[in-house]
Amino acid sequence: MILRLDRIGVELPPPSDPDPEGAQAVQELLGGKFGEMSTWLNYTFQSFNFRARQGARPFYDLLSSIATEEFGHVELVSLTINTMLTGASAVDDGKAPEAALSSLKGVGNPHHFLAGGQGALPQNSQGRPWNGDYVFSSGDLIEDLTHNFFLETGARNNKLKVYEMVEHPAARALTGYLLVRGGVHQVAYARAVEHLTGADLMKLFPSPRIPTDKIPESKPHIERGEHTKLYRFSQEDFGEVGAVWNGAHPETGDELIVADVPHPVGAPAHDLPPQPAVFAPDNAPEEIAEIAQKLRKKAGLPDEPTGLVSEESQELMGALTSKVRG
Amino acid sequence: MILRLDRIGVELPPPSDPDPEGAQAVQELLGGKFGEMSTWLNYTFQSFNFRARQGARPFYDLLSSIATEEFGHVELVSLTINTMLTGASAVDDGKAPEAALSSLKGVGNPHHFLAGGQGALPQNSQGRPWNGDYVFSSGDLIEDLTHNFFLETGARNNKLKVYEMVEHPAARALTGYLLVRGGVHQVAYARAVEHLTGADLMKLFPSPRIPTDKIPESKPHIERGEHTKLYRFSQEDFGEVGAVWNGAHPETGDELIVADVPHPVGAPAHDLPPQPAVFAPDNAPEEIAEIAQKLRKKAGLPDEPTGLVSEESQELMGALTSKVRG
Amino acid sequence: MILRLDRIGVELPPPSDPDPEGAQAVQELLGGKFGEMSTWLNYTFQSFNFRARQGARPFYDLLSSIATEEFGHVELVSLTINTMLTGASAVDDGKAPEAALSSLKGVGNPHHFLAGGQGALPQNSQGRPWNGDYVFSSGDLIEDLTHNFFLETGARNNKLKVYEMVEHPAARALTGYLLVRGGVHQVAYARAVEHLTGADLMKLFPSPRIPTDKIPESKPHIERGEHTKLYRFSQEDFGEVGAVWNGAHPETGDELIVADVPHPVGAPAHDLPPQPAVFAPDNAPEEIAEIAQKLRKKAGLPDEPTGLVSEESQELMGALTSKVRG
Amino acid sequence: MILRLDRIGVELPPPSDPDPEGAQAVQELLGGKFGEMSTWLNYTFQSFNFRARQGARPFYDLLSSIATEEFGHVELVSLTINTMLTGASAVDDGKAPEAALSSLKGVGNPHHFLAGGQGALPQNSQGRPWNGDYVFSSGDLIEDLTHNFFLETGARNNKLKVYEMVEHPAARALTGYLLVRGGVHQVAYARAVEHLTGADLMKLFPSPRIPTDKIPESKPHIERGEHTKLYRFSQEDFGEVGAVWNGAHPETGDELIVADVPHPVGAPAHDLPPQPAVFAPDNAPEEIAEIAQKLRKKAGLPDEPTGLVSEESQELMGALTSKVRG
Amino acid sequence: MILRLDRIGVELPPPSDPDPEGAQAVQELLGGKFGEMSTWLNYTFQSFNFRARQGARPFYDLLSSIATEEFGHVELVSLTINTMLTGASAVDDGKAPEAALSSLKGVGNPHHFLAGGQGALPQNSQGRPWNGDYVFSSGDLIEDLTHNFFLETGARNNKLKVYEMVEHPAARALTGYLLVRGGVHQVAYARAVEHLTGADLMKLFPSPRIPTDKIPESKPHIERGEHTKLYRFSQEDFGEVGAVWNGAHPETGDELIVADVPHPVGAPAHDLPPQPAVFAPDNAPEEIAEIAQKLRKKAGLPDEPTGLVSEESQELMGALTSKVRG
Amino acid sequence: MILRLDRIGVELPPPSDPDPEGAQAVQELLGGKFGEMSTWLNYTFQSFNFRARQGARPFYDLLSSIATEEFGHVELVSLTINTMLTGASAVDDGKAPEAALSSLKGVGNPHHFLAGGQGALPQNSQGRPWNGDYVFSSGDLIEDLTHNFFLETGARNNKLKVYEMVEHPAARALTGYLLVRGGVHQVAYARAVEHLTGADLMKLFPSPRIPTDKIPESKPHIERGEHTKLYRFSQEDFGEVGAVWNGAHPETGDELIVADVPHPVGAPAHDLPPQPAVFAPDNAPEEIAEIAQKLRKKAGLPDEPTGLVSEESQELMGALTSKVRG
Repeated sequence: MILRLDRIGVELPPPSDPDPEGAQAVQELLGGKFGEMSTWLNYTFQSFNFRARQGARPFYDLLSSIATEEFGHVELVSLTINTMLTGASAVDDGKAPEAALSSLKGVGNPHHFLAGGQGALPQNSQGRPWNGDYVFSSGDLIEDLTHNFFLETGARNNKLKVYEMVEHPAARALTGYLLVRGGVHQVAYARAVEHLTGADLMKLFPSPRIPTDKIPESKPHIERGEHTKLYRFSQEDFGEVGAVWNGAHPETGDELIVADVPHPVGAPAHDLPPQPAVFAPDNAPEEIAEIAQKLRKKAGLPDEPTGLVSEESQELMGALTSKVRG
Repeated sequence: MILRLDRIGVELPPPSDPDPEGAQAVQELLGGKFGEMSTWLNYTFQSFNFRARQGARPFYDLLSSIATEEFGHVELVSLTINTMLTGASAVDDGKAPEAALSSLKGVGNPHHFLAGGQGALPQNSQGRPWNGDYVFSSGDLIEDLTHNFFLETGARNNKLKVYEMVEHPAARALTGYLLVRGGVHQVAYARAVEHLTGADLMKLFPSPRIPTDKIPESKPHIERGEHTKLYRFSQEDFGEVGAVWNGAHPETGDELIVADVPHPVGAPAHDLPPQPAVFAPDNAPEEIAEIAQKLRKKAGLPDEPTGLVSEESQELMGALTSKVRG
Repeated sequence: MILRLDRIGVELPPPSDPDPEGAQAVQELLGGKFGEMSTWLNYTFQSFNFRARQGARPFYDLLSSIATEEFGHVELVSLTINTMLTGASAVDDGKAPEAALSSLKGVGNPHHFLAGGQGALPQNSQGRPWNGDYVFSSGDLIEDLTHNFFLETGARNNKLKVYEMVEHPAARALTGYLLVRGGVHQVAYARAVEHLTGADLMKLFPSPRIPTDKIPESKPHIERGEHTKLYRFSQEDFGEVGAVWNGAHPETGDELIVADVPHPVGAPAHDLPPQPAVFAPDNAPEEIAEIAQKLRKKAGLPDEPTGLVSEESQELMGALTSKVRG
Repeated sequence: MILRLDRIGVELPPPSDPDPEGAQAVQELLGGKFGEMSTWLNYTFQSFNFRARQGARPFYDLLSSIATEEFGHVELVSLTINTMLTGASAVDDGKAPEAALSSLKGVGNPHHFLAGGQGALPQNSQGRPWNGDYVFSSGDLIEDLTHNFFLETGARNNKLKVYEMVEHPAARALTGYLLVRGGVHQVAYARAVEHLTGADLMKLFPSPRIPTDKIPESKPHIERGEHTKLYRFSQEDFGEVGAVWNGAHPETGDELIVADVPHPVGAPAHDLPPQPAVFAPDNAPEEIAEIAQKLRKKAGLPDEPTGLVSEESQELMGALTSKVRG
Repeated sequence: MILRLDRIGVELPPPSDPDPEGAQAVQELLGGKFGEMSTWLNYTFQSFNFRARQGARPFYDLLSSIATEEFGHVELVSLTINTMLTGASAVDDGKAPEAALSSLKGVGNPHHFLAGGQGALPQNSQGRPWNGDYVFSSGDLIEDLTHNFFLETGARNNKLKVYEMVEHPAARALTGYLLVRGGVHQVAYARAVEHLTGADLMKLFPSPRIPTDKIPESKPHIERGEHTKLYRFSQEDFGEVGAVWNGAHPETGDELIVADVPHPVGAPAHDLPPQPAVFAPDNAPEEIAEIAQKLRKKAGLPDEPTGLVSEESQELMGALTSKVRG
Repeated sequence: MILRLDRIGVELPPPSDPDPEGAQAVQELLGGKFGEMSTWLNYTFQSFNFRARQGARPFYDLLSSIATEEFGHVELVSLTINTMLTGASAVDDGKAPEAALSSLKGVGNPHHFLAGGQGALPQNSQGRPWNGDYVFSSGDLIEDLTHNFFLETGARNNKLKVYEMVEHPAARALTGYLLVRGGVHQVAYARAVEHLTGADLMKLFPSPRIPTDKIPESKPHIERGEHTKLYRFSQEDFGEVGAVWNGAHPETGDELIVADVPHPVGAPAHDLPPQPAVFAPDNAPEEIAEIAQKLRKKAGLPDEPTGLVSEESQELMGALTSKVRG
């Protein structure tokens, strides 16, 4: 079982200029063969399928912890795409379907507008759906870990290239962060293989061979030591990760440590404004809000929503909504 | 972000007679169009893509809570499949590849043995991989909820049929439980649509039109009131679900209530024995155990693994391992 | 636009011994690369995409007529599969989900039972869904016709092999008929290419090189001259097919003629009995019938259903239903 | 069996400015998960798989009638795409392959030009082929109808968005018409579920929540009452639809009625001009025409083609051909 | 078994202006349904599956020879795509990931940059992967040959259209050559069918009906007689192709002859310059070169690489590398 | 370009008892994610896409040599499947389609009989087609090599499991050989990574951790030193492989050497007997033979076929043909 927090792993910038073609590219990091859905679901299935786990507890704990962090990465990529698509549809009275999407004809992934509500899709940069063939779970521990090291290497390649292709501030904040945290996982799997076989893999880093600290948006995270920390992403379990996650970081030489909190502090998400042209959450969102308010009252809930969103969300919703509504 | 617990939602029976053809059928509940991966990822993506969520907070909270429970269902189906496949490969000295899989030629899903380690796969009962086309996330709240009601209806259909096809005790424990908990989600989405539109959907229950309490394995859960409880699956968030989840249960008339604990107590999983014929976790699992033990010592961990598994696991590992090893 | 008749192209035998593995094989003729969905949708799309059709009217009319017949072939294959699956699920009180599908575990296409209601699926014999890549519509008339000749050749191959594999009387009645009518289409496309290019293709027949009249179930249709007749499948249109469809039949030497009625007389379909174990049309079909009867009354319809089904359907429904219900 | 009419359901405007990117978007309405191929084939398969149909005749008749209308919608979307692609390839002498497609490099769906002949494809807006996984046919009547209501809701969403994205007159004529006729089907399935379960679904309309009469191109059809009429699309069969299709229209309150003619009058299609750059129907279409004329003569057909095309087709063929030919 | 030569079948021009959208289109000739991977793998599988080959030796030899040539065509298309993509990424110091791919956002196939290293992919022009459903290998010789004739016809169609769409010199050199050599294969399969059945297919040429010698880039190859020559692509085997490959060429009337050398002379490939922005072969290619040089020394190899590349490669590598490096 | 030899890499046993379920399993080694089509096409594409190859010549030569060997492995797996399927269809007069495939209903991969001619398919053990997503070609040399090492590890896993599942002598001969030769490639890629990065990977062997010499069918190949030899598979090129392929074998300590002949001697293939029930190569193969003989005569070829097949083929064809013909 899992519990969910209404917080995301790192702060993302609010919507600015929409970038549908950038959002199309960022989809590779979500639904691509090496995207976050792949890392998430590979490790999750491997943890489900882990046999004789008591005898190999530190490895089971490592897999489970990393798998759990990956959910948060899928969340971050998804919110980035939502952010980049905000404001892309044209403004009219927000009610009548004139030609609010006409400027998006032939632009980016058509499903962002025709199928979805200017939101994230389980697809890659070509609009092809993620599929279960991207999961490798042989049950053979050394082999699964070898695979995972390779998977993280491919993932790092894709993050670097999306970084190079997309300059939108949300995409850069995302990739800067993911490069650091993905790097932790890449090292973790290499270390695990080393412990099990005696092979020495640290010289493979960095792979691709660009030092992570050359990425300006990664630097602050490295300075905060995020490249050395493994979080357990569990309140009480997975206490044996430290038996694998130890030694020196192959790029910086810093000591690898297990975080003493279960997860990064993170931040509340932005409450992104409605996009009435695509009926998200409705072509007349205020009607939804009205109904919800009545239901909340009836249930004895306070006047203000109890869920947390970013501080700028209030303002954002105002400013951007008025921009969206014209 | 999410946190993971090393516990599963409901107790599953330990491995008994292996049932590879049953496991092939149960895969429909995992990677089928209406399987748990679909419910899980549909609601998860819808929650990520939820715009103007503060104005519709009770609905966002509902979606997020249910999405989070679904992870646990994916976990349960996966462990059931693992349980049913345990012991399916033949016994020899556990080291040499004689013909340990020969009795499985032409039986069930060949990937259970050739690709995986007698474990769960993100595939349906035909061996076709789950794919992102199974996710519907239009951003239009009423439409997404209408979809979700239908999705749960299709899922209930599939669970009933797998129940009818597979008599293995693990499969029956699984479907008995999922029918009750899936029923909660089916009602929840119907209620949400009712609140938003005024339409009256309670008369659609049960759908398919078989009362859930006719399923012997569902009965105990109904008697414990599990069909009326919504868990938030969050320590502190998603506090507004009660604004949607209320009224009378359409089948039993019982009052719908929000659980006062974040999640069911559940149970620790079984530690399933190795299957050396498929190298899970290795063809010589004791070598993995030995290395792990050394690493644990070096890390200052206690002699016994700190992770929890079911009480019968110790015994199970002994008995079944000796069965597996011959 | 099309109009539909509640009749099928040829009489099929009623359900007898169920044959789920045979039904799995027959799916190749429905959703396979060379199945009837392929012939149907290839010619249909080619007819939609036909440019400058007035100048090439006889060819447009030919394509459209054959496309329209193919719908009836899809219908026949579907009904055959339904027939073969009737009675496959076990009998109990028809209401409670005990283990009514347990004898079908590991048998045939699992989707026939878990996803569908013992009915036809748009899938091939391997359970893979038909897809649009099977349609060729280049717009180049000669090329499209060359393709169609090849497609019919592949289709004939598959029909012959399904004939050899499946002895169920419904499957044999189906393939015997389709071999004759598919043969008409194969000749038609060859003739069309001949007319357009001057090439002589008649020596390619039969392909595969088994004379159709060696198939006992095809013989009666040949004796009735069905191998020489092109139906227009239109009340008033497609009157120019005779400009292409003429000359001697390459196998028998008989003259090719345009039928003077728009379609074969055919027969009403059987009304296949319910299969309550898979909820088709419900786990308590009599409740559906009751509601329908009330609605019919309210609408001033006569007491007996006005739609036609085969004469033995009454009896069939009684006999088989009681068999199904135990 | 079906019969085909050489007429389309509603008049479409003739080709004007080509719009390949618009055509790419319109493909979603053809081969998308919620496109017309999906509605068509879902209802068609459900009608084939309908068990115990005599006892539920009004529902069988409803499904069959609607299924049959959907063929005409697939036809309309296809012709719209053909219309929008007409004239997109550059003009030269129509014979030599210079660079007639160079302006289309990187524009729209490349298969419109490289694979097809500037015609419709069984693909969605991303160029992915339609597939059989989009068909739901459980055999459970209530469930199938619930699905169909949802399917029509998704289809309406996609039509509205394509309307907003594509301003080409053919696309607008198409979507204006389909919104009205699709609305009939959406209501029909909701009514059917109501009749069977007693649930009240009329308050779900419109869904998405934009009144159809706000669409200028839908209005004339509503004014003609097309939103209240169900056609049987059969000369003699399916006479019991009125037992389900009755009551008040949920948006306008008008009475739902069964049309006293089997199908809308409709119109002959345009005969779209050749596109020699893509060899449709040939790189020298006049040679095809010459051969056809000879064959027609030999068959004793009149000098003028006997098939009907739109009145402006003569002119169109002249004007546009000369435009195409330069 | 096969042996490989480090030479390509025809000289290709060196990189000039990059053309990513052209490269996207050319992918159709590689991974499309009618691309070179399809011709290659169809004939290769047919040759593996050829039963009773001694009795049909000339046909087996023909299939095997043509299959073997197709490898070289896959190679040529791949190198063309590489050539067209060279220089597409922006120039900086070649080391830091600034925004080197930003000008490629939304341009062409995103996988050319995000997944690959500005190289060829086993995908079609829509970015969909080639798949095994494109292979037809029925084992029925006449049927396989009929298919192959049709496959070559479709392939010729696609080559002509890519020619019309893409004016890049490498693409034109490629298509000009492939049209001639593919034409040989189209004739060969038609001749084989003729020999086996007596049907006369020569009048089907050319198909599509554009004489190959109207393509300026094909002319020189025709003048060299390449349209009449079948190469055995084997040092010692496949000596019986002449029993099928004989008679007059259907377009030119020239005599069909078996080449007296096993393969065309061809040319060495260009050594294409690194693209450090996509880490091909590394972000610091000189480090790879340095390591390789040390390994070569240690292995006693001469100072200069012993492999052959085109003469302009030296110059090319200098000029373009400095362009790439800025 | 490549040249083909009419020889296979290792002798395979002649057909014996047919084993369709075994053949289904062996398909995993052909068209599975880790099958020989994957290794073949991964390395082939990587070699085509290799930039700046002169500077990294030993690595380019290594990739190209191994890629070329993989063709021969695809060939061997295909012939094994053909061998195992020989004799599976029933015997009658070989001409009439009675029920020659009825014993194969529900057995193995239905496409082996319905689509193919009892031959190999580009599909995996589940009947799903191989697809281009299985190819990884990033252009980044270290990353591609890391991938290749992992790919060979997964391939070794699959070969071991197919070995355990399928006892048919042809399958055992195949896997015994492939385990040795695949092992060479696994070591080669590990060595290449070591040379480029300095990491030490030899301790990863064997992976999976079963010594290859425990496989009886592998032993003779190891005794002949085949585990230490790299063949260049080129008459004149790829001379620099020795700069990478050197040092000690990680399992046996033997010295890695470059073979002084371009390829293994191998053996001629068996000429497998016709299977008239599936029309391979025809339902009356002697007619094909007769035509071929006439063509051969006309072309001045000797009376006996000039192509080489195994010595036992003559006998085999007689014995098995008579068995097949009854």
